[in-house]
Amino acid sequence: MEFDRLRVVLVATRNPLNLGAAARAMGNFGFLHLRVVNPYEIAFREARSAVGAAALLAGAEEYKTVAEAVADCTLVVGTTAVRHRELQHPLRRLDDGARLIRKQLRSSPVALVFGSEKVGLSNRDLSHCHWLLHIPTREEHMSMNLGQAVAVCLYGLVRDVKVRLQPEKTELATAAEVERITAMLLDALQASGYMTPSAAAPTEEKMRRLVRRLNLQARDAEVWLGILRQIVWKLRSS
Amino acid sequence: MEFDRLRVVLVATRNPLNLGAAARAMGNFGFLHLRVVNPYEIAFREARSAVGAAALLAGAEEYKTVAEAVADCTLVVGTTAVRHRELQHPLRRLDDGARLIRKQLRSSPVALVFGSEKVGLSNRDLSHCHWLLHIPTREEHMSMNLGQAVAVCLYGLVRDVKVRLQPEKTELATAAEVERITAMLLDALQASGYMTPSAAAPTEEKMRRLVRRLNLQARDAEVWLGILRQIVWKLRSS
Repeated sequence: MEFDRLRVVLVATRNPLNLGAAARAMGNFGFLHLRVVNPYEIAFREARSAVGAAALLAGAEEYKTVAEAVADCTLVVGTTAVRHRELQHPLRRLDDGARLIRKQLRSSPVALVFGSEKVGLSNRDLSHCHWLLHIPTREEHMSMNLGQAVAVCLYGLVRDVKVRLQPEKTELATAAEVERITAMLLDALQASGYMTPSAAAPTEEKMRRLVRRLNLQARDAEVWLGILRQIVWKLRSS
Repeated sequence: MEFDRLRVVLVATRNPLNLGAAARAMGNFGFLHLRVVNPYEIAFREARSAVGAAALLAGAEEYKTVAEAVADCTLVVGTTAVRHRELQHPLRRLDDGARLIRKQLRSSPVALVFGSEKVGLSNRDLSHCHWLLHIPTREEHMSMNLGQAVAVCLYGLVRDVKVRLQPEKTELATAAEVERITAMLLDALQASGYMTPSAAAPTEEKMRRLVRRLNLQARDAEVWLGILRQIVWKLRSS
């Protein structure tokens, strides 16, 4: 499975909650390999010992440098919020970048590298990257929470991979069913005095169009017919 | 600007960090209107007073019920991790769903509703939704962290925003109008004996969903309300 080849690399993460959140998002989207580079020791220990910590976090590999953490990868992609700084790297929007990453994952390991909460990736870290991935946030609120950035990037990777979720097939009611409902509605309108029995054809047509605009589903047609039948019966019987 | 029309609705959120994270993601992607329904009071207060809390959070509107929080919206979309439970709603993947939401946002307000961390949205909450949005997570790790789920959904909305869509031509009824019609229908169902006054909540919720599936247009809402009002009046008066 190609996603098995992705390495999520967190560099100098400070907050244990973010380590936990990153691991959780990885679990959600089916990525297994977490690597941490120089995490704040306490954060790493706390995150690992948190109740319900993913096995994934327990199995995280620890490295001293980005170079070691990405050594087995053929493509190294950094992440950044920066937009204006003179970047030495090609910058790709998540949408386009995800396509390239997936392509590469078919044949070999890829590293997706996230910097620390405060300063992101250093120039040194960046120098290990082939290019940078950018989540299109607003100028004024550019910087994302680390855990959320990981979740969004991973979603970007799995987004249009075909999964087996049944597309909802809404079967519409047939014209015959819709017409039966219309007839019953007209009956109710007369019985309730909303419309006189001798109402002009235009009124009837207006009601017919009104019912058509509901785009009734097949499974609901029977229910509506039952409701109207009961209402008409009650109106007529009293 | 169309994104100005999205209302992010958080129901019964427990963790202040999640409230903060949701607000931050909204800021990142340019969404302004946060609504909270019955938040845990302490969580809401804590999140608001946190250092660096977004102005967005301070401006969050508080509601007692989902019905009130979505009253001005023409499309109400719930979010869920559930895949196997017998769902009463159409389920759309974020990818496809985002397209429909954006389309609707061009003309009118849309609510995107998130349930609590523990239990998600209740059946009652869900009965106010037209359909459900689903982030394609893995079977084994389905449930996402709330803050991350909000971030991923909002990213899904802005992702390929360059693509311009045709404005929606048919103006839909607001949730408040649809709820008025639902209430009147329930009244008619009781008056006609279709349903007992003491009918269990599930029946009421079933009817609420039935009415949502009609996708009532704004111009028709008044007509249906008039029809039902007349029927109820007649049923009660005899």
